[in-house]
Amino acid sequence: MPQAEFTIIPKYFADIGVSEWTSKLSQGDDAAILEIPDGKQAVMSVDTLIAGVHFPLETSPADIAHKALAVNLSDLAAMGATPAWFLLSLTIPDTNEHWLETFSQSLSEIADQYQIELVGGDTCHGSLSITIQVTGLVDKGKYITRSGAQPGDLILVSGQLGNAALGLAYLQGRSKLDDNLIELCTNSINRPTPRLCLTDFLQDYATAAIDISDGLVGDLKHILDKSRVGALIRQNDLPVNEWIRSSGAYEYALGGGDDYELCLTMPSEYKDQITRWNQNNPDCQLQEIGQITESGYYLQAEKNSIDLTHSKGYQHFGE
Amino acid sequence: MPQAEFTIIPKYFADIGVSEWTSKLSQGDDAAILEIPDGKQAVMSVDTLIAGVHFPLETSPADIAHKALAVNLSDLAAMGATPAWFLLSLTIPDTNEHWLETFSQSLSEIADQYQIELVGGDTCHGSLSITIQVTGLVDKGKYITRSGAQPGDLILVSGQLGNAALGLAYLQGRSKLDDNLIELCTNSINRPTPRLCLTDFLQDYATAAIDISDGLVGDLKHILDKSRVGALIRQNDLPVNEWIRSSGAYEYALGGGDDYELCLTMPSEYKDQITRWNQNNPDCQLQEIGQITESGYYLQAEKNSIDLTHSKGYQHFGE
Repeated sequence: MPQAEFTIIPKYFADIGVSEWTSKLSQGDDAAILEIPDGKQAVMSVDTLIAGVHFPLETSPADIAHKALAVNLSDLAAMGATPAWFLLSLTIPDTNEHWLETFSQSLSEIADQYQIELVGGDTCHGSLSITIQVTGLVDKGKYITRSGAQPGDLILVSGQLGNAALGLAYLQGRSKLDDNLIELCTNSINRPTPRLCLTDFLQDYATAAIDISDGLVGDLKHILDKSRVGALIRQNDLPVNEWIRSSGAYEYALGGGDDYELCLTMPSEYKDQITRWNQNNPDCQLQEIGQITESGYYLQAEKNSIDLTHSKGYQHFGE
Repeated sequence: MPQAEFTIIPKYFADIGVSEWTSKLSQGDDAAILEIPDGKQAVMSVDTLIAGVHFPLETSPADIAHKALAVNLSDLAAMGATPAWFLLSLTIPDTNEHWLETFSQSLSEIADQYQIELVGGDTCHGSLSITIQVTGLVDKGKYITRSGAQPGDLILVSGQLGNAALGLAYLQGRSKLDDNLIELCTNSINRPTPRLCLTDFLQDYATAAIDISDGLVGDLKHILDKSRVGALIRQNDLPVNEWIRSSGAYEYALGGGDDYELCLTMPSEYKDQITRWNQNNPDCQLQEIGQITESGYYLQAEKNSIDLTHSKGYQHFGE
């Protein structure tokens, strides 16, 4: 007989993560009680990860836990928010003690790393899926939306694009990978890094931001639509690994999805700040990849310019 | 090909519910921005409903939507909170337009009824399941927990117990029902009423409260454990329908689950307030069913006293 919720939660999920902002009442009641400090607004997002859709069925419970929280933290990062609390709704096909131990241990590690506290949730039996709802905090009015980009703004992305899609293709046997890229790419798909290190930079300089979960072309399009502007991106400036660069397989970087890097826009007058940021943050490099324009949406490729207006966003691999 | 999230959400879920507390930034960005008014605390809960576990597979999309929000609102009711915002994570096996229309229409109706605004979420493809996360607001420190019950307190429940379990047994062909009970009982399982009408009453008089989603005996036990007290409940005083009363099938009321009524404790000196409440609220009657004691957990049945200490809580029917 499966263990009921009231035995699984205290055993595996009672003490996960510590936040700078302590909950007034955490797990063990009908709901959690949270106090938003004066001068702050709450930033809330929810994301579900389904086995076979958002991660391959054979993904380890440690990777699943990391990714489930990371993709939600990435949404907070894109808003310029600081993580505070999260709720977990966990659906599992059976009560496997080893799975639960490994999952909760990994969840605890990433929660500690980003200082977010698990304050409630529920568990059910069914096909494996994980829903996490995160709440972050931001100084009033200091959040970054998708709607502030202006013609002339620079377009930047963090990290390298395409590694996650390449990692997935490798794990699914659709693509070979050089040995030196295997860890980088499989980590990108299984253990994405939410770019919360960019929170201050975004608040200081960004006019718009989004996280690249559905691929650069589709996600930048959301900024363009919301801001009513256009864009030109330069293929040669896309930050990609050496294999994509040499093989020219830029489709992984443009539409691959699941990178969880940030795409942001900022006035060109702050260009020096990019150099300074990159000098101080070797693990989270920013790369200028193009410019916001009045209208249109184009990719400057090797020899020609490609109209991206009707490009489709990424569909998760199981869809 | 299924419709992607960015077409389903604007089409069916763009404008659901209006809250007294407007969101600063709602759907269409990486996260929602919400401002908690001065003097209030946020009350947060999440619940997942899975087809075949929390509702029979053949349940109508209108009933599913109602129940998915209602069970979350019930958690807010148990805390003495007022609904403000919710996030929806919807997993559907395919994009059925009629299903989505009916689901979203019903979601809109219950969201309007309880003045809660849909501020974000995501959609995925997979086995049908619905996760809703609700945020309510409560005056600072005025929330009701499970831990405040004192020996001598009265134990009350709202509504009638056992109707949901009876309705489920009927829908599954496990039990016949008198014609005059069919609507009452199937509505109880498919369209539970969150007892938000009791918010003021709870804040004024209750020492502890919980929603009866897993059955009275198991849920009251959570109050006893958290408050470190005992209880005596009187079977004859349980509010049940005439069939349960005449057949003596009190197991539906004691352990049936899914009733989403509230169980609360309050000092006996406020007893007159119960009478007054019942006179003014014919649709949400409160019934005194027993008393908090120093220790032990007993049911005073027809001829004997039954020790409930080791009774098990309700397990959802698919588990």
